[in-house]
Amino acid sequence: MVRFDDIEEAYNRISLHTNKTPIMTSRTVNRLTGCDVYFKCENFQRGGAFKFRGALNAILQLEEDERGRGIITHSSGNHAQAVSLVGLIFNIKTTIVMPRNAPRVKVNATQSYGAEVVFCKPTLQARETTTKQLIEEHGYTFIHPYDNPKVIAGAGTTALELLNEIGRIDVLFAPIGGGGLMSGCSTAVKGLVPDSMVIGIEPAGADDAYRSFMKGEIVPSVNPESIADGLLTSLSDLTFGIIQKNVDEIVTVSDFEIVSAMRLLWERMKIVVEPSGAVSLAGLLKKSKEFRNQKVGVILSGGNIDLDAFFKTLT
Amino acid sequence: MVRFDDIEEAYNRISLHTNKTPIMTSRTVNRLTGCDVYFKCENFQRGGAFKFRGALNAILQLEEDERGRGIITHSSGNHAQAVSLVGLIFNIKTTIVMPRNAPRVKVNATQSYGAEVVFCKPTLQARETTTKQLIEEHGYTFIHPYDNPKVIAGAGTTALELLNEIGRIDVLFAPIGGGGLMSGCSTAVKGLVPDSMVIGIEPAGADDAYRSFMKGEIVPSVNPESIADGLLTSLSDLTFGIIQKNVDEIVTVSDFEIVSAMRLLWERMKIVVEPSGAVSLAGLLKKSKEFRNQKVGVILSGGNIDLDAFFKTLT
Repeated sequence: MVRFDDIEEAYNRISLHTNKTPIMTSRTVNRLTGCDVYFKCENFQRGGAFKFRGALNAILQLEEDERGRGIITHSSGNHAQAVSLVGLIFNIKTTIVMPRNAPRVKVNATQSYGAEVVFCKPTLQARETTTKQLIEEHGYTFIHPYDNPKVIAGAGTTALELLNEIGRIDVLFAPIGGGGLMSGCSTAVKGLVPDSMVIGIEPAGADDAYRSFMKGEIVPSVNPESIADGLLTSLSDLTFGIIQKNVDEIVTVSDFEIVSAMRLLWERMKIVVEPSGAVSLAGLLKKSKEFRNQKVGVILSGGNIDLDAFFKTLT
Repeated sequence: MVRFDDIEEAYNRISLHTNKTPIMTSRTVNRLTGCDVYFKCENFQRGGAFKFRGALNAILQLEEDERGRGIITHSSGNHAQAVSLVGLIFNIKTTIVMPRNAPRVKVNATQSYGAEVVFCKPTLQARETTTKQLIEEHGYTFIHPYDNPKVIAGAGTTALELLNEIGRIDVLFAPIGGGGLMSGCSTAVKGLVPDSMVIGIEPAGADDAYRSFMKGEIVPSVNPESIADGLLTSLSDLTFGIIQKNVDEIVTVSDFEIVSAMRLLWERMKIVVEPSGAVSLAGLLKKSKEFRNQKVGVILSGGNIDLDAFFKTLT
């Protein structure tokens, strides 16, 4: 498991390198929800998402010889960019295994941080096999996106930083994908403010955490489909155990609700948040009546979205 | 003219109601420019643009009976929303004259603040005649978007707030449309840090300020065309006089350069800035070699942009 102490230690370790991300408030959102809402804006984190915190915490604790041999992960999303960026900062050889149909923009971003991208067939099995082979061949250290206590503790610093700045909250809304962010953040919240509630938000089209939570055992994600492309992964035993212990409720939201929340963030708050990052606001908008006049933390987990088509219409 | 004292007084008057907007920095922009850059983010101002500051400063100084009769302006842009929002906050009857071809989204935004929109033919003359008629009929007070010392002093609080927070700068980049923002900001900068430079940025397709500045007399804007729709207006005698006195250089940027700057702000800094608000960064990117290792202030003046088409592609 992960203890609150681990998260405090992680924060001491990584705070020199992470952006202390801003906390934003919005008159419009407060009016719409009737709550006193504080947004923790991880879209402003280095690499554009909270993932940098976990990757950094794990990689900073590698032994000298592990760093020398290099690091590896498989991901086509924000974790790939986070690991690559940490590799770049500390001059560690970094390899990212990606499905060969990964969006060009994500491949470019990862390569721009100096990582070597190795392509594989677009299946989870191919990713894992390719990664395993490369580890056996080169002795790389695998940095799992969430099934790793150091990555979870790093992610938990998001909520710790929020609470350090604004004090106690009544409820936290955070997204659930593989469960790393939620595991870390819920541990921080329950550690600092034991009586506050923690609500996890999931896309309705990728509701494996919701189903696992209700059933009491892991129900893997099968053919998930949602615009929130960062939340399609399944829980691990580690994250499921923490979520069972700390999370009070899991709420699902439709893609339409996710896009509406995104639009509110872009149009009214003037910040770019990706679909996976906006689900927590979508959840709050759905549940706000239960938390009137309460102090609510909402984690906006990232802001990496392909704007190519949008900017092409402008030029 | 407008004195530095006027801007300090304006700041004392309006600071209770304005958002103290954040100042942002970006490793990417510092690396690209070689400068130490501080963005003053008026896209986070109430109403989504710096215009709120000027409207608020002017309206707060109306006499009781003037407030009772109501206020009016003609605009289809950010000034309309700013005046309407101030009218709403202080419960003042507000009328906005708009060309009948104004974008529906801007009409809606203005009406959502409770203002009455009166449509006219889409010419400057029709706007002015309609406004004049309504003033004669109802005794409304006209709040000009920039040709008004109180509006200019209010706009100048943008730069004052920047300097109050980060101390002296070597150079300020700010957009020029009608010249109100630049008049106020340049007065604040030259008042507090007399030896710092002030550079005005204008779209190449609406370069009346550049041509006026070079010729030494006002050259009106004729058929201006630019994606920066907030910067198509001509200078007034008042703003031209202040700009001649305070501004060191005016630089023009193409629409392509404006969109590239916008894209950098959205993709890397994760903030929504409208074209008119991004011209100042476009100017810095063009001139950065002259300011290596210097401390640079950049005013991002607003973030109101129609995202309807973008969000339609998502749902």
